[in-house]
Amino acid sequence: MRGSDLLGHIYRRSASLTTDHGHIIVGPGDDCAVVRESGVDLLLKVDQLVVGRHATAETPADLIARKAIARTVSDIAAMAGSCSVALASAALPKGFNQSRADLLFDALSKWALHFGCPLVGGDIASQPKPEDPLVLTITLLGRPHAARGPVLRSTAKPGDLVCVTGALGGSLDTDSMGRHLTFEPRITEAVFLASTFGDALTAMMDISDGLGIDAGRMARASKVTIEIDADRLPRHGGIDLKRAISDGEDYELLFTVSPDAKLPETCPPGSGDTGTPITVIGRVTDEPGSGVWLLTADGREDIAAAGFDHG
Amino acid sequence: MRGSDLLGHIYRRSASLTTDHGHIIVGPGDDCAVVRESGVDLLLKVDQLVVGRHATAETPADLIARKAIARTVSDIAAMAGSCSVALASAALPKGFNQSRADLLFDALSKWALHFGCPLVGGDIASQPKPEDPLVLTITLLGRPHAARGPVLRSTAKPGDLVCVTGALGGSLDTDSMGRHLTFEPRITEAVFLASTFGDALTAMMDISDGLGIDAGRMARASKVTIEIDADRLPRHGGIDLKRAISDGEDYELLFTVSPDAKLPETCPPGSGDTGTPITVIGRVTDEPGSGVWLLTADGREDIAAAGFDHG
Repeated sequence: MRGSDLLGHIYRRSASLTTDHGHIIVGPGDDCAVVRESGVDLLLKVDQLVVGRHATAETPADLIARKAIARTVSDIAAMAGSCSVALASAALPKGFNQSRADLLFDALSKWALHFGCPLVGGDIASQPKPEDPLVLTITLLGRPHAARGPVLRSTAKPGDLVCVTGALGGSLDTDSMGRHLTFEPRITEAVFLASTFGDALTAMMDISDGLGIDAGRMARASKVTIEIDADRLPRHGGIDLKRAISDGEDYELLFTVSPDAKLPETCPPGSGDTGTPITVIGRVTDEPGSGVWLLTADGREDIAAAGFDHG
Repeated sequence: MRGSDLLGHIYRRSASLTTDHGHIIVGPGDDCAVVRESGVDLLLKVDQLVVGRHATAETPADLIARKAIARTVSDIAAMAGSCSVALASAALPKGFNQSRADLLFDALSKWALHFGCPLVGGDIASQPKPEDPLVLTITLLGRPHAARGPVLRSTAKPGDLVCVTGALGGSLDTDSMGRHLTFEPRITEAVFLASTFGDALTAMMDISDGLGIDAGRMARASKVTIEIDADRLPRHGGIDLKRAISDGEDYELLFTVSPDAKLPETCPPGSGDTGTPITVIGRVTDEPGSGVWLLTADGREDIAAAGFDHG
């Protein structure tokens, strides 16, 4: 079963949440929920890391902790938010010893601080059997961008440019130096985009399951169609087109801007090789169907189902 | 390994959090964290339910969902807070089918609404093997009591009365009608106590691991000693003294009030058999050692280590 299908069930049930509950600004289905408490908007996100799926039993505890925190931070970045605090819970295999658990929580605490969201709470439970997998669950509280507010995935407009940060594909390859474990969540880049373009930054999300699947989610949420020019896709070295679209775990930003936005080539502007590349990869159209079309010399192909599902 | 020992490691590391980060009012170690965002105080809590430990494979999904939400709500009650929103994540055994997962999330959504914290987000991951246990993680955002503020466990004072709501013991017995699955988190009672007594409600927590262990946590956090009169302990039918102290999963409130507080016998006052009993069970002293002494006709016994650990 695909996690996204299951979550779809939650989303469909939640349509009445924002109308029935005035303090819920954005319910399930976007990168974060947005909740308003006493006039203050808050971002909330929960994410899990399951050893055996998102990391292997051989992955060092430090990198497991880093990834667990960083992929949740990436969802705060996806809304152009900033981090406030984190909560971490662990379901440990039976017999997981105290010193390993201490190391794991030391690492979680260290990386949470590193990414600007100190660990303020947690829960530890033991699983019934020694062979049960370690499950880490990270919750982040974040703040929306003060001027722009939360940047949703559901607000892309026909005519917008479609862009990505960085390069795509190969994150899980052993020769990628474990990019899925060591990536930098695009908090700085997202805040720069929101601060610079304001409402002209029309929609944003992070690419976790692959450009195809994730662009499909944006297209459906925004009720638009997305066209991507194959020859403009920024790919990591040795990665072919198919993998750039479908490998997943990129944790880059996928965003749309008004067509007149003056995008820099890197973020921050002028940073050249040391900055994060920003690439226009396509455009938003009003063609019915909420598809994601990859345009190649040979024609076009719907890639909205092409990607890796973490579920 | 005991979950509480592990969490102790987090608590020790976190002593500098509230001084280094002005927005962290209460860090790890109390029932909830307290965070201040733009002048608004927030409660945050995460808790896990592992099937095979906190429920059995035969427990209906509806009751698993209820318990997962209710035990987290109980932590909000423990601070006299109220609920805002919930996030739910599930790590599903491989092959857990779509309709079962839909039922589980329908139930989570229903109970979250029932307890006043609509589900605004979630995450679903599959575990590697069909025999891996279902792990549910619930995060709650709450609001502290508007007038009293959050009621901590670390602020009990020598001379205070020590009290509990309801009755203790036997929650896990099959003939208890599954009280650990069907208990009512004491939100109403806690809000009543905070509204009525204000700062004279000096400290509070919920009893999840057994009165002995939990009173021990309050004594250590408050740097006081607690004396409990054995003959005053309210026990469920058929439960002996030892079990009332150590069974755990009561989800009643343990609280301290100034000695001149005029406590009603039930909450709400005058509700008699239909209300929740409030019982004075002992007192806070300044005897060194942060012990919890059970006073019986035969003498006294330290019960701070007597309880059930969920870890």
